[in-house]
Amino acid sequence: MTLHQSTAVGRQELLEEASRFIEQYGAELGLPRQETEARMSRIADELAESGTYTHTSGELAYGAKLAWRNSNRCIGRLFWDSLIVQDARAAKTEDEIADAVFRHIEYATNGGKILPAITIFAPSASADRPRIRIWNEQLVRYAGYAQADGSVIGDPISAELTRFCEELGWRGAGTPFDVLPLVVQLEGREPRWYDLPEGIVLEVPLVHPDLPSFGRLELRWYAVPFVSNMRLEIGGLHYTAAPFNGWYMGTEIGARNLADAARYDMLPKLAALMGGDTSREAALWRDRALVELNVAVLHSFKSKGVTIVDHHTASKQFALFAEKERQSGRTPTGRWSWLIPPLSPATTGIFHTRFDDTERTPNYFYQQALPRMDREGKNKG
Amino acid sequence: MTLHQSTAVGRQELLEEASRFIEQYGAELGLPRQETEARMSRIADELAESGTYTHTSGELAYGAKLAWRNSNRCIGRLFWDSLIVQDARAAKTEDEIADAVFRHIEYATNGGKILPAITIFAPSASADRPRIRIWNEQLVRYAGYAQADGSVIGDPISAELTRFCEELGWRGAGTPFDVLPLVVQLEGREPRWYDLPEGIVLEVPLVHPDLPSFGRLELRWYAVPFVSNMRLEIGGLHYTAAPFNGWYMGTEIGARNLADAARYDMLPKLAALMGGDTSREAALWRDRALVELNVAVLHSFKSKGVTIVDHHTASKQFALFAEKERQSGRTPTGRWSWLIPPLSPATTGIFHTRFDDTERTPNYFYQQALPRMDREGKNKG
Repeated sequence: MTLHQSTAVGRQELLEEASRFIEQYGAELGLPRQETEARMSRIADELAESGTYTHTSGELAYGAKLAWRNSNRCIGRLFWDSLIVQDARAAKTEDEIADAVFRHIEYATNGGKILPAITIFAPSASADRPRIRIWNEQLVRYAGYAQADGSVIGDPISAELTRFCEELGWRGAGTPFDVLPLVVQLEGREPRWYDLPEGIVLEVPLVHPDLPSFGRLELRWYAVPFVSNMRLEIGGLHYTAAPFNGWYMGTEIGARNLADAARYDMLPKLAALMGGDTSREAALWRDRALVELNVAVLHSFKSKGVTIVDHHTASKQFALFAEKERQSGRTPTGRWSWLIPPLSPATTGIFHTRFDDTERTPNYFYQQALPRMDREGKNKG
Repeated sequence: MTLHQSTAVGRQELLEEASRFIEQYGAELGLPRQETEARMSRIADELAESGTYTHTSGELAYGAKLAWRNSNRCIGRLFWDSLIVQDARAAKTEDEIADAVFRHIEYATNGGKILPAITIFAPSASADRPRIRIWNEQLVRYAGYAQADGSVIGDPISAELTRFCEELGWRGAGTPFDVLPLVVQLEGREPRWYDLPEGIVLEVPLVHPDLPSFGRLELRWYAVPFVSNMRLEIGGLHYTAAPFNGWYMGTEIGARNLADAARYDMLPKLAALMGGDTSREAALWRDRALVELNVAVLHSFKSKGVTIVDHHTASKQFALFAEKERQSGRTPTGRWSWLIPPLSPATTGIFHTRFDDTERTPNYFYQQALPRMDREGKNKG
């Protein structure tokens, strides 16, 4: 193991971060004071000896929950304390990592009754030099095949990862809904890709309750959003591979993934199918199609028994979360621009609320995006 | 005339503000350098003598346009240079002020072909001690009559002004759409109210192109949004009474004024009228009703020949404004949270754009809200 944070300054900072987290952990769980102090002294010893320290599984689990609670962009935080944590720090090889990821997908999908979960791999002492990276933005996402004419078959957001996977040797079927492989990279090694095992990815074909012709669009979406490219920071340690999932709010699929002009761009097609005047913007054909696309998403997920929440209900759940935070003596934090839903935002309470956007740790942070494969070849190996 | 800014420091600040504006005025209009210098020297003389200075009508007009161009919350700024300015600085009495306001309403309404306009009354040297205030948020707005049970007949946003007008002796008919009187106050005097003259307020009864039963809601809205409570600041002078208008973007009426739960709250009534399941949020009955309410607004205004813009078109116009600003060597500024429309925001380019929210002057600023009448009585008179 390489220790990146071996300077005295680095150790001192890490000790302070650890102390802040261990204090919070002890305080929120009501641990005896001497227990927290004893723990801090063991951490100080470990740090002096090895340059880093190791979270107990209890600390790891609570840290991941706090990171969710502190995620200002997330509307679903009412359920932060129910996060299920798979401690996968012992996974050393790409194969072991892939196995743990697949277990996570199956467990959290749970036949449609989705369980919020996170799988945490071994941490790095430095955020900039990850020991483990998962290159997928989400564990399950559809490929986007760039065409010669500039168009994309599939999800344009995945165009770069798709090309990267193809350079690694992967070949997709070429449909608009091919699930990309998992791409894992260990420090100093080439990335490796794994097809997701047959049958573990739950998907929902989209139908509309009142528009039979909706089926002609042949739309589908995967059941679970597993975010897999964020860095989980707890007590100064950087878990650069820590895929997590909640369940979808319908608008993420219906008002962004399938609707955005830079994604699947389905509004013109759906509007054409619905009839009505699409020659004048003032006829609001985009808005009408958008609502029906979202109706279809919610209806289809619910019909299949797959957990999903509409934006009105999610907004009320968020208000309850904020209230619970205040009752616990904490200021709920949030980022308005992320919390408002992209459909009828002013009909939700969130739109009419101001938020304190203070960023606290533990938290989930963005990491450097996928490097181009050619740069990759030069940097690593 | 009372001079509030008579200290040496105050004069120096005012001179600097004046200079910044006069420089910009000269530069943007391509005036000869010596003309700008001569003007500044006249301003310095006037300031030394009287403690303040007076804008030429050219400066006043261009300053008001710049204030519009700098309004980060406004999506309609493509048309900043077409603002029509009524110089009403000579209006001294409440009657003269009311007359100028009424002229503005008629002129800008223009039988439905709305003209963007501003009427500018005499400035104050201090923003905190206005010589003239118009207490209405907008020149035309509907009264809100608070009922004993906590409900409001009319527009709840006007409840306080309505009570204030009633304390002044005004009596409304008690319908949900009574236009409030104009309330003008000169420094040191009691506020005076004026009923808007018969026939100058253009209103649009709302109908829906495909839902005949929509008419049962008996909704209407006024044609022109005249913002009348903001302070226009140009070159250090404070025009505390400077009502201005553009035209409506449909969502302001359809997705806020008539839809917000804290305003006319029409979504449940409209959804009931449209039929369909309103027992489950996931049926998106709010979102469906919201779109149809907005369809009705745009359709009704257009049918009546009243200028209005839909949010898709407005978003494209804003992108054109931003592009023109960049071509003129300026950074377009904006506030994302105000620029995104409250209906299907992610279908517009604005949602996917980041903005520099730097606040420049000249600009329009919020002023202290309506003081309670009882406090008013003690402060003034």
